[in-house]
Amino acid sequence: MLNVGIDIGGTGIQLGLVNEKGEIVQRGGIVTRTDIPFSQQIEALAKCVLETIEKGGYTLDDITAIGAGIPGVADPATGRIPFCTNLGWKDVDFKGEMRKHIDKPVFIDNDATVAGLAENVAGVSAGAASSVFLTLGTGVGGAIVLGGKVWSGHHGVGSEIGHMILVAGGEQCTCGNKGCLERYCSATAIIRMAREAVKEHPETAILAKAEGDPANINAKMVIDAAKEGDAIGLQVFDQYIQYLAQAISNVIMFLDPEVIVLGGGVSKAGDFLLNAVREALPRYVLYKALPYAHVELAHLGADAGIIGAAMLGQ
Amino acid sequence: MLNVGIDIGGTGIQLGLVNEKGEIVQRGGIVTRTDIPFSQQIEALAKCVLETIEKGGYTLDDITAIGAGIPGVADPATGRIPFCTNLGWKDVDFKGEMRKHIDKPVFIDNDATVAGLAENVAGVSAGAASSVFLTLGTGVGGAIVLGGKVWSGHHGVGSEIGHMILVAGGEQCTCGNKGCLERYCSATAIIRMAREAVKEHPETAILAKAEGDPANINAKMVIDAAKEGDAIGLQVFDQYIQYLAQAISNVIMFLDPEVIVLGGGVSKAGDFLLNAVREALPRYVLYKALPYAHVELAHLGADAGIIGAAMLGQ
Repeated sequence: MLNVGIDIGGTGIQLGLVNEKGEIVQRGGIVTRTDIPFSQQIEALAKCVLETIEKGGYTLDDITAIGAGIPGVADPATGRIPFCTNLGWKDVDFKGEMRKHIDKPVFIDNDATVAGLAENVAGVSAGAASSVFLTLGTGVGGAIVLGGKVWSGHHGVGSEIGHMILVAGGEQCTCGNKGCLERYCSATAIIRMAREAVKEHPETAILAKAEGDPANINAKMVIDAAKEGDAIGLQVFDQYIQYLAQAISNVIMFLDPEVIVLGGGVSKAGDFLLNAVREALPRYVLYKALPYAHVELAHLGADAGIIGAAMLGQ
Repeated sequence: MLNVGIDIGGTGIQLGLVNEKGEIVQRGGIVTRTDIPFSQQIEALAKCVLETIEKGGYTLDDITAIGAGIPGVADPATGRIPFCTNLGWKDVDFKGEMRKHIDKPVFIDNDATVAGLAENVAGVSAGAASSVFLTLGTGVGGAIVLGGKVWSGHHGVGSEIGHMILVAGGEQCTCGNKGCLERYCSATAIIRMAREAVKEHPETAILAKAEGDPANINAKMVIDAAKEGDAIGLQVFDQYIQYLAQAISNVIMFLDPEVIVLGGGVSKAGDFLLNAVREALPRYVLYKALPYAHVELAHLGADAGIIGAAMLGQ
């Protein structure tokens, strides 16, 4: 039997047919459109699901359930989406709309949650008694898995780690608060810090990579410059690592999971990032002599969203 | 049957014989001494336990187990105390020493954890599916109870909410970090903010209550001044409430428990504190239109430590 896993993103919707081993046996996808009503978007998505099943040589009888990761607030109990700001969805019935087209059980959850679940089942934190997953991308998403089960909180508004306040009174966040963690620990934060630094140091390799225009700077340029030993690249990278280590230390101080997994675009920096985080962490954790969470890089990469969504139906 | 509950504090050790209903039927206590070896302190404590049992007209046959709340890191699995900085204990065997004198099962956990457990079983959060307890005292302690069970984390170093960083780069904390939550949300923080404010405003009622000497200021004086409508009292109180609301919002963003309970000395401000927190919170929570944790005041007061410790053995 197979499950359909759907990873809804701001620009594209990726889906896959996933077997019991967590392997994707057939893929499909459509472009995300915010210019059409929600019902039409789901109609197009359902069509793509059916086409993908057919393309793989399967029928609906081979499918157990459909799961989707939502880049916003998802209510697993009702299958409704109270808020999905990026896509302009507000209090829409994902499960109900999908079931108008495909008569299978439908499950939804937050996209970071779903990716965290995938890592906890089939990825780097597989079998961990407890894990916290951080996606370091445009923003910072979070997922908590306790005893193999997703913890989204009592009201379903938990694991929004990106909007925990790390620097009260600090940088303005899009959410209205000041000093949210994602203002300091996202790819966006690296770019902001780098743009600030290049003003004083136009000689940095970061600016050369950006063809002289600070508007072109992305997180990879900064990390590449740091890897090459560029002084300003290293300075910005270290600034970022210190904030990230404090954020990770906060997760340890509060929940003390067995494993903390770093995913998202910034995690593509690989061991360069991981080693720096592991080196910085002891400065911040309270009980330096006692064991605390292993920090690891996500293993499943971009497929975590599809695999985790498929697991919602297992 | 009765359990012995022991609440170990920096100045005194309180204990009680607690029945199945969570009622204290006999009390005892000794002074905490940091000038004697750990083994002698536990010998004196065991003597006090035996005397309290006798004083109540009971025998050891009436006692099921002994539980203790430790103002530091306690390892529930081994009964050892890796760190208890306030009392100068380091890697001591509480369970082993106690059992030299009394042959009963011995359980230990962190003191804030134990108080949170007591509230979750017999106090304001009784029956809650999940709760987070914050003790607002000299420092800030924390406890997490999930599904009726204490969550101390995978390595037993969790729920140290007071040392989560709230203002990265902020006030120096005794732990070595800067900007820990307890530097902004404890009674000590209120005193610091008030001492700062009275420099500019010696006319405030706070200074009058402190007999003109900023060194005499305590948190109650500040809160009393605010209750009376003193402008500087209200200003300092609001400053404190904004930090506390951000800390509580962080708990909601991360774990999203059903209930958040405020205990400790500052919580004696009662509804004046609770109403201010509830009013400030919507400014900071991410999903303002969705339900989130109820914030409540602890009900068991100073007895929570004894009652919760006794519950460890149930």
